Amino acid sequence: MSKKAIVILSGGMDSVTCLYWAMKEYKEVEALSFDYGSKHNEKELRCAKLVCELNGIKHHIIKLDFINKLFKSDLLKSGGEIPEGYYEDENMKSTVVPFRNGIMLSIAVGYAESVDADDVLIGSHKGDRTVYPDCRKEFTEAISKSAELGTYKKVKIISPFNDKTKAEILKLGLKNYVPYNMTWSCYKGGEKHCGKCGTCVERLEAFKLNKIKDPVKYEMKGGKIYGKRKTKI
Amino acid sequence: MSKKAIVILSGGMDSVTCLYWAMKEYKEVEALSFDYGSKHNEKELRCAKLVCELNGIKHHIIKLDFINKLFKSDLLKSGGEIPEGYYEDENMKSTVVPFRNGIMLSIAVGYAESVDADDVLIGSHKGDRTVYPDCRKEFTEAISKSAELGTYKKVKIISPFNDKTKAEILKLGLKNYVPYNMTWSCYKGGEKHCGKCGTCVERLEAFKLNKIKDPVKYEMKGGKIYGKRKTKI
Repeated sequence: MSKKAIVILSGGMDSVTCLYWAMKEYKEVEALSFDYGSKHNEKELRCAKLVCELNGIKHHIIKLDFINKLFKSDLLKSGGEIPEGYYEDENMKSTVVPFRNGIMLSIAVGYAESVDADDVLIGSHKGDRTVYPDCRKEFTEAISKSAELGTYKKVKIISPFNDKTKAEILKLGLKNYVPYNMTWSCYKGGEKHCGKCGTCVERLEAFKLNKIKDPVKYEMKGGKIYGKRKTKI
Repeated sequence: MSKKAIVILSGGMDSVTCLYWAMKEYKEVEALSFDYGSKHNEKELRCAKLVCELNGIKHHIIKLDFINKLFKSDLLKSGGEIPEGYYEDENMKSTVVPFRNGIMLSIAVGYAESVDADDVLIGSHKGDRTVYPDCRKEFTEAISKSAELGTYKKVKIISPFNDKTKAEILKLGLKNYVPYNMTWSCYKGGEKHCGKCGTCVERLEAFKLNKIKDPVKYEMKGGKIYGKRKTKI
């Protein structure tokens, strides 16, 4: 318990659960969030800020304006419409922001070295892997090695939920009293969660598997799961 | 010659030579520069911009304001005085910007994936290694692996000068007609090159070894090399 961690905090379910996990595992925790011009950034960042205030966590929001200007992704304000359906559907690939995790992790590694932190934590999980190459375990291991080699402090990158499904993360978070009403998932960033985009579908499924009602509001009544999963979890 | 490369272009000798090398080796080349709040950023970026205009290279300057605000380094405007002497001197460590190359490379990898480029190039070299952990070959190899794993395009990171000294880079650049009068090295970012900081000393030494006069202006007369190197090149 002598270590210090920097948590990448989007304000979604996984990263907020990761923050609560870190608060138990580390002596000191700080959080970094990124404003990179996604359609749901404002909604997410509001949650990230609230959760940090609630827990007295030092928190910085880093603006990365160039991503929305120069990168190609439908997740961005500059991109096209958000597709609907399960994560593994081919059209979900359009929501990938190229190397986003690589960029956020590298910045967090530099910050960690600056504030003498040991580890950088990210909440990527099993369910992210099909669509997002920079959520895979092999990717996290490789970039962690580059962080160790590229810093004096030998900063490590840890993704504690790499082998967990979203439902398993939720199960852990419920035990740790994570305030899921203060998390935002929907890619569309509207008034309520749409219930139809990849991340809404995955979120609803996780709550259903834990036999508990999702506390956030949905546009569709009763939080029915939209579409049909093509592969087993 | 069917490939496209993104060159990390600071505007210094090594990166400009790397750009000229890339123009020979690749069918298509773009350049990315970063404004991260170093004392010599304005001077460097002016050179980067000019060199790209001269060669009709597509060029973006990406602002990373958070580095100057949140990171600890004497290279930054927010940091202390620039130390003088050779690179390997212990006090030169204060000029390291934590994981700067990791951050710039990650952004370039995301950009490469967005514009369908194959490789990202960086001009780090043998002489950088003693002080800068994120200039080492092992680091570049590890982050290149993470880039390959973290992108659909399997973007690679290449540092063509990894085994070259600065004098060898200059030798190559002179053959390729690199306009060294349009490059900036001095960490202090003053009117002229100071001739005393680590990068000025290394630059002057490289020109001396190539028996050619450095075309940029120095504060000290005759471009005498300041201090004494402790180790062999």
